[in-house]
Amino acid sequence: MDSKTVKKFREIAGEKNVFTNKTDLYTHSYDAAVLDSVMPSIVVRPENSEDLSKIIKLCSDNSLSMTVRGAGTNLAGATVPVKDGVVILTTAMNRILELNTEDLYAIVEPGVITQQFAEEAFKKDLLYPPDPGSQAVSTIGGNVAQNAGGLRGLKYGVTKDYVMGMSFFDAKGNLVKSGSKTLKCVTGYNIHGLMSGSEGTLGIFNTITLKLIPKPLHKKSILAVFKSVGKASETVAAIIANRIVPATLEFMDNFTIRAVEDFSKAGLPVESEAILLIEVDGHPAEVEDDAQKVEKLCKKMGASVQIARSDEERDKIWAARRAALSALAKVKPTLILEDATVPRSKLPDMVEALTSIAKKYDLLIGTFGHAGDGNLHPTILTDKRDKKEWEKVEKAVEEIFDKALDLGGTLSGEHGIGIAKSAFLRKELGKSTLDFMDKIKVSVDPDNLLN
Amino acid sequence: MDSKTVKKFREIAGEKNVFTNKTDLYTHSYDAAVLDSVMPSIVVRPENSEDLSKIIKLCSDNSLSMTVRGAGTNLAGATVPVKDGVVILTTAMNRILELNTEDLYAIVEPGVITQQFAEEAFKKDLLYPPDPGSQAVSTIGGNVAQNAGGLRGLKYGVTKDYVMGMSFFDAKGNLVKSGSKTLKCVTGYNIHGLMSGSEGTLGIFNTITLKLIPKPLHKKSILAVFKSVGKASETVAAIIANRIVPATLEFMDNFTIRAVEDFSKAGLPVESEAILLIEVDGHPAEVEDDAQKVEKLCKKMGASVQIARSDEERDKIWAARRAALSALAKVKPTLILEDATVPRSKLPDMVEALTSIAKKYDLLIGTFGHAGDGNLHPTILTDKRDKKEWEKVEKAVEEIFDKALDLGGTLSGEHGIGIAKSAFLRKELGKSTLDFMDKIKVSVDPDNLLN
Repeated sequence: MDSKTVKKFREIAGEKNVFTNKTDLYTHSYDAAVLDSVMPSIVVRPENSEDLSKIIKLCSDNSLSMTVRGAGTNLAGATVPVKDGVVILTTAMNRILELNTEDLYAIVEPGVITQQFAEEAFKKDLLYPPDPGSQAVSTIGGNVAQNAGGLRGLKYGVTKDYVMGMSFFDAKGNLVKSGSKTLKCVTGYNIHGLMSGSEGTLGIFNTITLKLIPKPLHKKSILAVFKSVGKASETVAAIIANRIVPATLEFMDNFTIRAVEDFSKAGLPVESEAILLIEVDGHPAEVEDDAQKVEKLCKKMGASVQIARSDEERDKIWAARRAALSALAKVKPTLILEDATVPRSKLPDMVEALTSIAKKYDLLIGTFGHAGDGNLHPTILTDKRDKKEWEKVEKAVEEIFDKALDLGGTLSGEHGIGIAKSAFLRKELGKSTLDFMDKIKVSVDPDNLLN
Repeated sequence: MDSKTVKKFREIAGEKNVFTNKTDLYTHSYDAAVLDSVMPSIVVRPENSEDLSKIIKLCSDNSLSMTVRGAGTNLAGATVPVKDGVVILTTAMNRILELNTEDLYAIVEPGVITQQFAEEAFKKDLLYPPDPGSQAVSTIGGNVAQNAGGLRGLKYGVTKDYVMGMSFFDAKGNLVKSGSKTLKCVTGYNIHGLMSGSEGTLGIFNTITLKLIPKPLHKKSILAVFKSVGKASETVAAIIANRIVPATLEFMDNFTIRAVEDFSKAGLPVESEAILLIEVDGHPAEVEDDAQKVEKLCKKMGASVQIARSDEERDKIWAARRAALSALAKVKPTLILEDATVPRSKLPDMVEALTSIAKKYDLLIGTFGHAGDGNLHPTILTDKRDKKEWEKVEKAVEEIFDKALDLGGTLSGEHGIGIAKSAFLRKELGKSTLDFMDKIKVSVDPDNLLN
């Protein structure tokens, strides 16, 4: 980038918010997935809405590609920049502009950390339900761009279900508004719905209005230990079919249990083939009823059941679950985390298929995930430098996708498509659908400057 | 339309599904709002997906405008055709293709009647929450196109919150797919989110996948009678601020109460200034707790409270509420039903403003609506033939919109924009937002053939 343009960025955002040295550029050249990194030519960090707008206009006027980046925790390459482009960091736009306890909504800037926001709401007895695994560092803007899921998705839905409205800048830096602070709003197209999950390809968030709900009065956590993977996945289907909707219903196979136990010493049953971690919440009487029903169903399926008796015991269970990804990452140099999702009744078929795919290609696959949503994270542990094994990995991934689609599922439940999975999109959606999406993308970003 | 083209429509859809005589054309020239009717040149009723696709292609090849119409219950002119265009009726595409009780979803054709679908789900102990006032005749396709709300919106959300996916035809008749049968799906843009509430302007629905939830175990209905409109609206704000989320929280002013009582003899308290109709649902213990809290709050605000003791008593209350629109419609020849929505804490201000607007212009305004959502339906009763009064009506409507926007609200909570309110859109959204929407519209329907 020529020094004149760099100077303009510095004038807008201030000296301390413009980065051009190699180390900084490298830091922002990849995400949490395993894609090859791409060096941007500059990283800019606006501190407010006005600066953000000026930066986008400068980029637009000079035909510079823009890649927006929050915390960079995403898993499918959606924040990997294109060569020589501009990375726009949202981390300094991190204010909670309003937390309305009467009307139960909040307006935030995109760089607010998810967990910090949720904690602020919780202090007012309000719940912001979406809780992606990376919530301790991920940003709300990133969550919305990816339509992030989380552990509570089963009962409470995903990020888009809490986006009431937003304002964002289009590719030319014009401010677009959609939605409202009111619970219902059908004024104009549901643009905020379209933007949720659009991975930064259609605009750059300025403010986001989020719905909050009263926090549940009570909750109870249950650990069910199974002798077979099949019985565990059948139990998931049975719980839902029995009209119980736990807040959380998580699955871990033996491989993952062992890795987590090695990593976190949480006291998990390393001899068991699979565990389910279940949390029910709501009115105390309802929680009691649901917990009893879940316990009964699990026992009928041959599981042994523990109910957490204290907050500490409960926290230990969930900390173990949240450690799953980090624990698996330590096993081998390269980790391929997939996100295939199937209707919940098809979970036993999917789990069986994963076992046989692992056997067929002689690969290490640890599987865990949001079983209640049918959203599993089969995680292949490998070494990308081992060319021969890498070929097998690619074949296995394709087979996992094919199986998920066969079972009426989808490529991605919550991590998104990004660069990593874009080749598989056509398989799931077909040409007409991709054409429709392309038309929308081209119409609002004709020079293809956004992501 | 030339007879050759008419013949082609007959060949595709069959003799009995093509209408060209004046009476039939007139029947499909208006909706439930008060706009002037526009005569289409032909009405076609496809019986299946294949015929629908052929009809759209025929229209596209001949540059014929298409207006899709379900039951025509909408209230803002979104199904009023353009002159000489083709009206496509969805009423014969009315099958429930799948009702999955294990994975809690259904796949339906767009012409399915909302209430019939909800009843089918209920037989399987499942709830389809969106319940627009017109549910007995409205279609699911129409509900999705308008993102319809309903009485249960407060706790359960609106139609778009239950659209998991869909397939639809674009303006050229290509089939586009979005979403999935899985609870979570972030594969591709959230096109089904964009389509929800797009009022038939972006594509024509083929199938819709809807989320179902376990039906609540118990419910309780409460009628609270107030001596002042202000106290009633303050009570609404207080209930929400006290972290109680009833399934339904409806408001009626004295004028509406009298009209309903005249119409339905439900035994409503005609002397009261305002009533709130409240339903809490969920686990029996939770229902008990919430009902007690609501009762206490209402009494604190000076209301007298009745709790329905039988299913019959409850049904009578809700039938009265559902009769509000029909009852008001009988008072005067022309009814203008507005849909302004404000944050719930601003309800007392809005109700006060409505009273003074009615006084200022000397108009009859009956107000009722989904108070819990901040979504009121101020209903102006007038006679369009009285030119002088009509001028006052137009001024009053504008003032109602301005007040709603002033209070941080929106033009439309659930009825949509259609033709009726499109002039006010710019005021709420601004030019950049309308440009962004236009670009999307033009990109997928370049010849402007859809609605």
